[in-house]
Amino acid sequence: MVEKPDVGELTPPDRTLMGPGPSEVHPRVLRAMSTPLVGHLDPSFIEIMNEVQDLLRYTFRTDNKWTIPVSGTGSAAMEAAIGNVVEPGDTMLVPTNGYFGGRMEEMATRAGGEVVHVDAPWGEPLAPADVAEAMDEYQPDVFGFVHAETSTGVLQPQVSELTDVVHDHDALVIADTVTSLGGVELKVDDWGIDVAYSGPQKCLSCPPGAAPLTLNDRAMDKVLSREEDARSWYLDLSLLEGYWGDDRSYHHTAPITNVYALREALRLVAEEGIEERWERHRENASALKAGVEAMGLEMNAPDDYWLPSLNAVRVPDGVTDTDVTDYLIDRYDLEIATGLGDLDGDIFRIGCMGYSSRAETISYLMAALGDALDTQGADVDVDAGLAATARALGEQ
Amino acid sequence: MVEKPDVGELTPPDRTLMGPGPSEVHPRVLRAMSTPLVGHLDPSFIEIMNEVQDLLRYTFRTDNKWTIPVSGTGSAAMEAAIGNVVEPGDTMLVPTNGYFGGRMEEMATRAGGEVVHVDAPWGEPLAPADVAEAMDEYQPDVFGFVHAETSTGVLQPQVSELTDVVHDHDALVIADTVTSLGGVELKVDDWGIDVAYSGPQKCLSCPPGAAPLTLNDRAMDKVLSREEDARSWYLDLSLLEGYWGDDRSYHHTAPITNVYALREALRLVAEEGIEERWERHRENASALKAGVEAMGLEMNAPDDYWLPSLNAVRVPDGVTDTDVTDYLIDRYDLEIATGLGDLDGDIFRIGCMGYSSRAETISYLMAALGDALDTQGADVDVDAGLAATARALGEQ
Repeated sequence: MVEKPDVGELTPPDRTLMGPGPSEVHPRVLRAMSTPLVGHLDPSFIEIMNEVQDLLRYTFRTDNKWTIPVSGTGSAAMEAAIGNVVEPGDTMLVPTNGYFGGRMEEMATRAGGEVVHVDAPWGEPLAPADVAEAMDEYQPDVFGFVHAETSTGVLQPQVSELTDVVHDHDALVIADTVTSLGGVELKVDDWGIDVAYSGPQKCLSCPPGAAPLTLNDRAMDKVLSREEDARSWYLDLSLLEGYWGDDRSYHHTAPITNVYALREALRLVAEEGIEERWERHRENASALKAGVEAMGLEMNAPDDYWLPSLNAVRVPDGVTDTDVTDYLIDRYDLEIATGLGDLDGDIFRIGCMGYSSRAETISYLMAALGDALDTQGADVDVDAGLAATARALGEQ
Repeated sequence: MVEKPDVGELTPPDRTLMGPGPSEVHPRVLRAMSTPLVGHLDPSFIEIMNEVQDLLRYTFRTDNKWTIPVSGTGSAAMEAAIGNVVEPGDTMLVPTNGYFGGRMEEMATRAGGEVVHVDAPWGEPLAPADVAEAMDEYQPDVFGFVHAETSTGVLQPQVSELTDVVHDHDALVIADTVTSLGGVELKVDDWGIDVAYSGPQKCLSCPPGAAPLTLNDRAMDKVLSREEDARSWYLDLSLLEGYWGDDRSYHHTAPITNVYALREALRLVAEEGIEERWERHRENASALKAGVEAMGLEMNAPDDYWLPSLNAVRVPDGVTDTDVTDYLIDRYDLEIATGLGDLDGDIFRIGCMGYSSRAETISYLMAALGDALDTQGADVDVDAGLAATARALGEQ
C-alpha cells in the first residue's frame, strides 16, 4: 500500500510557447527563480516587496498605493478583486462577449452579488452605448470588463468612454488586464480604471504563481468599509493590507520565489520601457498578422480591436483545428491553442506575449503553421505568408 | 508621474533558515525551478501532474484519489479544505491551543459555518477526553485539529484516538499537517484522517506556491454533494476536480514552476524514504534539543509532545527575545523566530525542517545561539551545549 513511486528526472519537452499563456520565460527570470530563499518576514524581503510594488505601479501606469502581487495565479487576483469589491447584495454588470466575463459572473455570484449583463457577440468588444444603457437600466454597483479577451483575441477600445459612463453612475470599474498588462497600451490612472488584475504568465513572461492587482483609494475604501468580511480569508484584501501595507505583519507565507521572479520580469519591463514594450508587441504581432493574411487566412478581429498579444486566426476550410495544433506540438514542439466557447472549432489562438514576442519565434511559428496547414490540406499560400512576415520583421 | 523605478539586480542575503518556515531549499529543487515552462494543458504536463499526485500520496501515506497541490501557499490549501468541506449551517469544532486553530475558525466562519471550541492551553495538545466531550455536547459536522502546531512547537499525539471519537459521531476530520508532512510521522489512511492539508515550505523544503491537499472519498462525497457552491471559485474542489481528475479540463493556469519544484522535492522524499526521513528529523532535532538543554535552556513542550520539526525553547531570564533574533540575523545571517499569541515573548521557535535539518545547520545554530545568548547576558553554559550537540550528532 502507498508504494514508493518510480519517478525520474524532470525532463519536460522544449516547447516554443505561442498559445494564450504561459508565454516563454526570459532566461533572467528563470535564473531569479533558482535564487535561495529568505524568510517572508526578513527585512531584506520587505525591501524586495517595496521594489515589486514600485515596478508594478510603473507597469500598470498607476500611483495606486494598493498595488500588490496576489499569492496565486491570475484567477486568484481576479477573485481577490471581485470577492472583495462585490459585497452581498451588490449588483455587478458583466460582459457576455467572452469566456472571462462568464468567470466574473461566477465569482461575483459566489461573493453574494447579483449579476446583470451587457451583451456583445463573442469576438466583438462592448459598445459604450450598450454599457450606458445597461448602467441606466440596472444601476449596478460594479462594472467589470475584459480589456484583452484571451478567449476571442479582442481588445476593448474606448476604455475611457466606458469608465466615464460608469463613474457618472457612481459605480466602480474592475478591469481584467490579464492579457494586456505589459504588452498592450494600458493606463490605469489616465483611463479611470478603479481596480485592475492580471496574470504574470502572459505579457510579463513570468511563471504563474504571483498575480498583479491594483486598487485605487475609492475601491479600497469600499473594501475596508465592508459590513461583512470577504468570503475568502486567503484573498481578504483588508488582511493582505496588513502584510503588503505599512505594518508588514504576518498574514500568510508569500510565494517568495514567485515574487523574486516577478521582480525580475518587471525589471525587464522597466529596462525596455513600458511604451517601447507595447510598440514591440504591436510590431512583432503585425508581422505575424501580415503573414497569416498573405497566406490567405483571416483574422477573427477587425483591425480596430485586434489584440496584438493574442491573435485569433480563423480556421481555414478543410482542416480540423485540433489536427493542426496536435501536428504543431508533435512535429515542432510548438504550442498554439484552439478556440473556446462560442468560437470552439472556429479559431486558432496565437499568443505573441512578452519574451515569446520575438522575430525568431514568429518566423518559426509562420514556417510551422504553414507546413501544418498545407499538410492538413488547407488552401494556403505558404510562401507568400513567409515572405510577408519576413518583410515586416525586416522593416522594424 | 509613475516614473521608472530604479531597481537593481536581485541579491538577497544568504540566510540559514531555521525559523518556522520557509526552510532552506535543496539545490536540486532550486534547479528544477529554473526549468523552462510547458503549457498547463500540455500532454507532458499531464504526466507531471500524475507523478506529483503519486508522490504526494506516498508522502501523505494515503491511497486517496483526491490528492493534489493547490495553486497557492499553505493557507490556500487550508481554505480549500475548510471552505469546501464546511457548508453553510455546518458546525465545526476547532482547537484553541494555538494560532492555527484560530485561523481554522476564521475560515470556517467565512464558509458560513458555526464554530465551537475544544480547549487546551497554548503549548499543550488536545486531550482525547476533551474532544469526546465536545463532540457529545455540540455534535459538530467537522472537527479540525493541528497535527504539528507551528506557533507552539507541539505535536498532537494520539491522533487515532481523536479520529475514532469523531467518526463515532459521524463527523469528518480535517488535519493541519503543515509542519509535519514529510518530517514527522504522519499516516493519513492508518490514522483515519479524512482531509489533510500542508505547505511545501516546511519539511518538504520546497518554495511556497503549490500546497499539498488530500481528501478521502467520504470527504469528497460531501464536497461534491454540496447544496450551495463553495464560496471561492478559485479554490472550489468540485471545479479543480475537472483539472486534476480524469478530465484534465481547464480551470485556471497551474503554477507550473511550483509544480516542477514540488515534484523534485517529493522525489527527494521518495529517494530518502519517508520513514527514514522522519527518523532523520527526529535525530537531528534530538541533537539540537540535547544541546539547548545542556546549555541550561528549557524546551517548552514535554517530551511526550515535542515536535522535532519546530522546537519551542523557553527564552531564558535576562534577555529579550527580539534582541536575540535580531543579533542572529545581523551577525550570523541566521533566521529563527520568536513566539506568537499567548507565547509571545516566552519562546524561540527553531525549525529543523527538510533540508534545514542537517548536522551543519544544527551545529551552526548552536554556536550562533550560544554566542547570542551569552552576549545578551543570559546565564547559559555554551560549552556544555555545544558539546552535547556535537556528541549527539556524532552518535548518529
